[in-house]
Amino acid sequence: MSKIKDACLADGGYISYSWAKSHMKILTESAGRLKKSKPLRGLTLGFCMQMTKETSVLLVCAKELGAKVVACGGNPLTTHDDVAAFLDSRGIITYAWSDQSKSEYEWCQDQVLSHKPQILVDDGGDLNTKAHFDNRFKTLKVIGATEETTTGVNRYAAMQHKVQLRYPIIAVNNAKTKMMFDNRYGTGQSTIDGYLRAMNLIFASKTVVVSGYGWLGRGVVQRCSGMGSKVIVTEIDPIKALEAHMDGFDVMPMDRAAKVGDIFITCTGMTSVIRKEHLLQMKDGAVVGNVGHFDVEIDAKFLLSRSTTRKIRPNLDECVMPGGKKIYLVSKGRVANLVASEGHPPEVMAMSFSNQLHCILYLVKHHKKMKPRVYDVPKEIDDHVALDVLHASRIKIDKLTKRQTKYLHSW
Amino acid sequence: MSKIKDACLADGGYISYSWAKSHMKILTESAGRLKKSKPLRGLTLGFCMQMTKETSVLLVCAKELGAKVVACGGNPLTTHDDVAAFLDSRGIITYAWSDQSKSEYEWCQDQVLSHKPQILVDDGGDLNTKAHFDNRFKTLKVIGATEETTTGVNRYAAMQHKVQLRYPIIAVNNAKTKMMFDNRYGTGQSTIDGYLRAMNLIFASKTVVVSGYGWLGRGVVQRCSGMGSKVIVTEIDPIKALEAHMDGFDVMPMDRAAKVGDIFITCTGMTSVIRKEHLLQMKDGAVVGNVGHFDVEIDAKFLLSRSTTRKIRPNLDECVMPGGKKIYLVSKGRVANLVASEGHPPEVMAMSFSNQLHCILYLVKHHKKMKPRVYDVPKEIDDHVALDVLHASRIKIDKLTKRQTKYLHSW
Amino acid sequence: MSKIKDACLADGGYISYSWAKSHMKILTESAGRLKKSKPLRGLTLGFCMQMTKETSVLLVCAKELGAKVVACGGNPLTTHDDVAAFLDSRGIITYAWSDQSKSEYEWCQDQVLSHKPQILVDDGGDLNTKAHFDNRFKTLKVIGATEETTTGVNRYAAMQHKVQLRYPIIAVNNAKTKMMFDNRYGTGQSTIDGYLRAMNLIFASKTVVVSGYGWLGRGVVQRCSGMGSKVIVTEIDPIKALEAHMDGFDVMPMDRAAKVGDIFITCTGMTSVIRKEHLLQMKDGAVVGNVGHFDVEIDAKFLLSRSTTRKIRPNLDECVMPGGKKIYLVSKGRVANLVASEGHPPEVMAMSFSNQLHCILYLVKHHKKMKPRVYDVPKEIDDHVALDVLHASRIKIDKLTKRQTKYLHSW
Amino acid sequence: MSKIKDACLADGGYISYSWAKSHMKILTESAGRLKKSKPLRGLTLGFCMQMTKETSVLLVCAKELGAKVVACGGNPLTTHDDVAAFLDSRGIITYAWSDQSKSEYEWCQDQVLSHKPQILVDDGGDLNTKAHFDNRFKTLKVIGATEETTTGVNRYAAMQHKVQLRYPIIAVNNAKTKMMFDNRYGTGQSTIDGYLRAMNLIFASKTVVVSGYGWLGRGVVQRCSGMGSKVIVTEIDPIKALEAHMDGFDVMPMDRAAKVGDIFITCTGMTSVIRKEHLLQMKDGAVVGNVGHFDVEIDAKFLLSRSTTRKIRPNLDECVMPGGKKIYLVSKGRVANLVASEGHPPEVMAMSFSNQLHCILYLVKHHKKMKPRVYDVPKEIDDHVALDVLHASRIKIDKLTKRQTKYLHSW
Repeated sequence: MSKIKDACLADGGYISYSWAKSHMKILTESAGRLKKSKPLRGLTLGFCMQMTKETSVLLVCAKELGAKVVACGGNPLTTHDDVAAFLDSRGIITYAWSDQSKSEYEWCQDQVLSHKPQILVDDGGDLNTKAHFDNRFKTLKVIGATEETTTGVNRYAAMQHKVQLRYPIIAVNNAKTKMMFDNRYGTGQSTIDGYLRAMNLIFASKTVVVSGYGWLGRGVVQRCSGMGSKVIVTEIDPIKALEAHMDGFDVMPMDRAAKVGDIFITCTGMTSVIRKEHLLQMKDGAVVGNVGHFDVEIDAKFLLSRSTTRKIRPNLDECVMPGGKKIYLVSKGRVANLVASEGHPPEVMAMSFSNQLHCILYLVKHHKKMKPRVYDVPKEIDDHVALDVLHASRIKIDKLTKRQTKYLHSW
Repeated sequence: MSKIKDACLADGGYISYSWAKSHMKILTESAGRLKKSKPLRGLTLGFCMQMTKETSVLLVCAKELGAKVVACGGNPLTTHDDVAAFLDSRGIITYAWSDQSKSEYEWCQDQVLSHKPQILVDDGGDLNTKAHFDNRFKTLKVIGATEETTTGVNRYAAMQHKVQLRYPIIAVNNAKTKMMFDNRYGTGQSTIDGYLRAMNLIFASKTVVVSGYGWLGRGVVQRCSGMGSKVIVTEIDPIKALEAHMDGFDVMPMDRAAKVGDIFITCTGMTSVIRKEHLLQMKDGAVVGNVGHFDVEIDAKFLLSRSTTRKIRPNLDECVMPGGKKIYLVSKGRVANLVASEGHPPEVMAMSFSNQLHCILYLVKHHKKMKPRVYDVPKEIDDHVALDVLHASRIKIDKLTKRQTKYLHSW
Repeated sequence: MSKIKDACLADGGYISYSWAKSHMKILTESAGRLKKSKPLRGLTLGFCMQMTKETSVLLVCAKELGAKVVACGGNPLTTHDDVAAFLDSRGIITYAWSDQSKSEYEWCQDQVLSHKPQILVDDGGDLNTKAHFDNRFKTLKVIGATEETTTGVNRYAAMQHKVQLRYPIIAVNNAKTKMMFDNRYGTGQSTIDGYLRAMNLIFASKTVVVSGYGWLGRGVVQRCSGMGSKVIVTEIDPIKALEAHMDGFDVMPMDRAAKVGDIFITCTGMTSVIRKEHLLQMKDGAVVGNVGHFDVEIDAKFLLSRSTTRKIRPNLDECVMPGGKKIYLVSKGRVANLVASEGHPPEVMAMSFSNQLHCILYLVKHHKKMKPRVYDVPKEIDDHVALDVLHASRIKIDKLTKRQTKYLHSW
Repeated sequence: MSKIKDACLADGGYISYSWAKSHMKILTESAGRLKKSKPLRGLTLGFCMQMTKETSVLLVCAKELGAKVVACGGNPLTTHDDVAAFLDSRGIITYAWSDQSKSEYEWCQDQVLSHKPQILVDDGGDLNTKAHFDNRFKTLKVIGATEETTTGVNRYAAMQHKVQLRYPIIAVNNAKTKMMFDNRYGTGQSTIDGYLRAMNLIFASKTVVVSGYGWLGRGVVQRCSGMGSKVIVTEIDPIKALEAHMDGFDVMPMDRAAKVGDIFITCTGMTSVIRKEHLLQMKDGAVVGNVGHFDVEIDAKFLLSRSTTRKIRPNLDECVMPGGKKIYLVSKGRVANLVASEGHPPEVMAMSFSNQLHCILYLVKHHKKMKPRVYDVPKEIDDHVALDVLHASRIKIDKLTKRQTKYLHSW
């Protein structure tokens, strides 16, 4: 019943799945413990997620727990066709192929919803939005949903504000073991990876300008510093700026940083961080890229329109400005850590997807008592995932003694 | 009217005051800008704080803004007599001397309250508690108070819970520019300082066990790592433990860490972190100390009672256990960063005391609209202090453009 | 007269050349200053070097200084055909294409020597060896040569020992600005790059075992540590082991490290560092690779023969041992930093090739006074290259004052 | 027969000795293994060394190995009288007390030589010089000597050059396990310690200017960076400057660094590094100090003569320049890491003194074959000391296999 590019690619998809699986043990072992009791039996789950090797591990787990699993891609461009073929070969109903048109992308979502899933797992909010506002699906009986991204969570928050939500949605994105870790450690590393592949220049001795000193920026700063770069931080928040200063990094406005930076990495989630006036001031040879949420952080439009541009390396455009100065733009300003590298390592995705799995099970168990609103991941799930990661690394930690618990409560 | 040890010590106190003052410009310049308008004129301020050179800068500022200032020490043991003499010489009514008995300590507080202060500035909650529960002072007309410590804030929270608070108290302790900074950077450094003075052993290559990976523990871990030590973290919170693990440090329970550590530093705020069973497992020569809130983190009582003890260096006791194993205890388990070193550097105290000064002014302006409860420091004060520190370091940061503000609000 | 794969590829080669050139300014600017005087006029230079974009910059420089330039590849497999085509289009006589047989590889060297070069620039010693021992070329009048690698230098040292050298050879490899920098910074970074591409696992929290704490090992250790890994060092030299210990890293024999490591990186230049007995002890999932000189550091033969092997990712083989344990081998044990990534960044090659260019000019000027032996790079060239790099980064440094010079000589 | 200040101080000296001893196990255990055979029986050893707790451990070891030990202080000012008393109580003939005049200092050396020592252990070269050029001692039958310092080694090198040496002298200073380690790790830490005690300002966020990037400077840079400072390096050597640059630090001439630094630390061994013109450019509040060999690195004379000076803290002078700018001078420009702190930790001294002990034993065994010149510490002693330190830390390392030895020799 699936619609995929080529079922013959399943073997390659299986190799990718195997590699990812062996680095996502916290997810597969959690699932393994529940396999016998089939806690998802009788349920249909609808997934709208990036079709990557890591996602395939989550989908197979869900199936092994007894669910009927139906899936489409969370992005029209990024489906790995071999992974989709592998999923199909495992009995997961899959509507996904690479390079879809917008209408094809929507059609796939329609197919997923046509299976009448009771639980939706979304990555950006498209599936849940359709389930709320598309007349064909308004009568679906959804007991709850989970959401992987900030963007999705924001969309549901707006819907909740307007009292439009029809079922509870758990913001997996907000779990500490998701947000704190994929931003700092996942993106920190994949940023280095993406820039290395795009430019293959040496980080050591370079001046790297990092915009934003939130979780994301901190992760990036630490890795750049670890590669031997001098780091300059730009910020708009005085307290974060002060932290960067106390952490030993140079802090200055973009106006000044633009003149001295060799490499620029925006990490803000804000628009127009590197603007026309900054691009005009940069040194010849500056490399400019973004790892924040969207491609709005750099004024790439200005850069590309005012310069003679050629692709000089994969994911790197050379922009020759009037006067001859060259600026290099990484992956056209789109998130370089995903576009120019392979994206988050499987260990990081395992943390996110463990939260997903536990939240799905939580919905099954508790949905009757839940209201149509956005929920944070329960602290016990968050802690549980953390303990699973520690356990997988053979790490034990201390527990409160009775005396300590008493002392704690005396406050 | 003051009661101090020796007025002749004022010159020495003045030198200490000058040194501190020149490193607390964010405080003195804030005060300087307001000097002419005397915003504290007509008010009596009662301080109960550690009588150190840094405190003297805050008291002189308060007086320069027009207040009548009355002060006693926040701790019966720690008053610097030269500082007290200097304050007296500047017309600040001072009741403080070193090595007070408990009753002398209380007498000093009584004297401060007898001046009928409208605003109280407290460091631990003793003064505010007296103002609430001592019959002699129950009729005082206090418009508000500020509090420097976690301990004090906790005490008021309990009072608020029982609806006993009579006036608003601002928890200066909770300001980000206080708590986040003095814990991480102030204590991080003063821990190294205290241990260095106590033991003069080399940090490089030593295995340092840090208990607790909160703000405090992180600061300590970073500095130990920066001195070349291998760091082991013990934690009870799975998420913090996971952060330590992802930050590249060894994480294990104290049971195992006890056997391999060379130096132990407790940073938890919890009781009984290093217990009998751990002390018995430690290596010969282990150095054990605490920089958490109180002296309850190490079972020093057990250690001292079961061993032949002698003071082998200032702030370091050698404890020879039955069998001959030696354990070294830093400053008897009391907070080593304060007892064995000079305590927080003036730049860190300047951040805390700038919050104090701004909160006092805030109380003057807004107390009529405030309720008898514990308030956090207003965000604008927190940001203001951060900007002042950046400004003093000649650092400018970016501001939101109109377009960015609009983008922000679109979410 | 060239023999290359396809002259039509020249345009692509030009783009690569341009990118490299703009990051090798210390080389091109040195050449630029001498362009007019054509100091290499009348000379034929024979190059045997890796045909990469960086090499193309050196060859073009040599031509611009007046030389007739003839070149073949330094390795039968690694020629970039577009670069070779570009060189040909620039009038450099080029004998090089990818995937040569051994006899084709030798034929190319013969062609180079048949042009009767007066100066040879070698990368491994093949060309110089042929010029010494092949009867066809024994009568060549070579005034001198330079050598890029340790291997080549070792071969000449043996020849010098047997009094077989016929002309002076400058060991460019031994320049501080070559060896100290490409090992520490170049390989440090390219090791991270190669492993990231091969495995895409997270470094943070992983235990990385680095064998060897020489220049190479230190560079690798620093970058792994900068990526958030815990590092274990293995060494045979007590003093280097002690340095690693004092630098805060765990030091242990491979016997023990094998049991706890997640990722292994050999950096020794020695044979049989990771042996059968170590492979058998490793954890399931361990990743094993080498960035030392040759592919002898890991007993890959044992690993591949005793396991069921499949390529699971580019440059990564999964080896399933009897019993089911999986070991992952990076690029079959060959130098992962070159095979699995793009190799040294152009800035690092620029330092090496600047030494090459200056040494060529030195030979032209001084060869009459030089003897048939291996020379180190003159200190003034080494210093000169360092100053050029600093200058290109807009960095000035201090100079000795007269007083200081005098003080220095008083010792 | 000793001459010391007060024999009653012996108990205090014993406590210091015990503390040092328990952290110098590599020395005491080496001695312990030889105790029975008394390899120094029948010999008189003359020591001229700093009378510290660490030295007392070396002297007691020498006595336990059978020698008659006679000692005087290596500096007229730095003798710890309690240590001298303790040594006397242990039967070591001691001529040393604090605050000696120059003639008293020389008298003590005369006394040592009057005991006709066969081996001299010197710390600066005064004792050996006297043994060579003072007519009273020219006939002494010395079989050899050892030297702790660079200064001493330089003096003997000059004597060797003039063919004046009468017996072999081993340059313990040049051992890798001495020089590389006390400079990097010992001084790195003691510099932080000395500055912390002198100024008690926060390192985090401060700009620290370190002059010199040799072993010493690197150690200091690493520790400052580890304390959260931004580091600027000044250098005169292009290659060292380039290393600092590639290590991610700012490099600039002192002219520019003077304007932006908060804290200055000279580590060069050169004269006049911070000169008049630099002092005049510094920011108000700059802290200036030296940890290089002598007090010539900063033009303290200019600073003190052109400013109103007062001691504002122990080892810190406030210098108010005309115009009101304040510069703070640490320990009057003398080596701050020794003057303002306790000096090297005992673990570092243990490495140096183990070399001393082994070299003394080496002289006993080999002196007949040795010539009257300066010898480096034999590599086997250096390695042995390194292994002892590793062993004391319970660390084992790998050994070459037969196959590896063969491979090594194939080069």
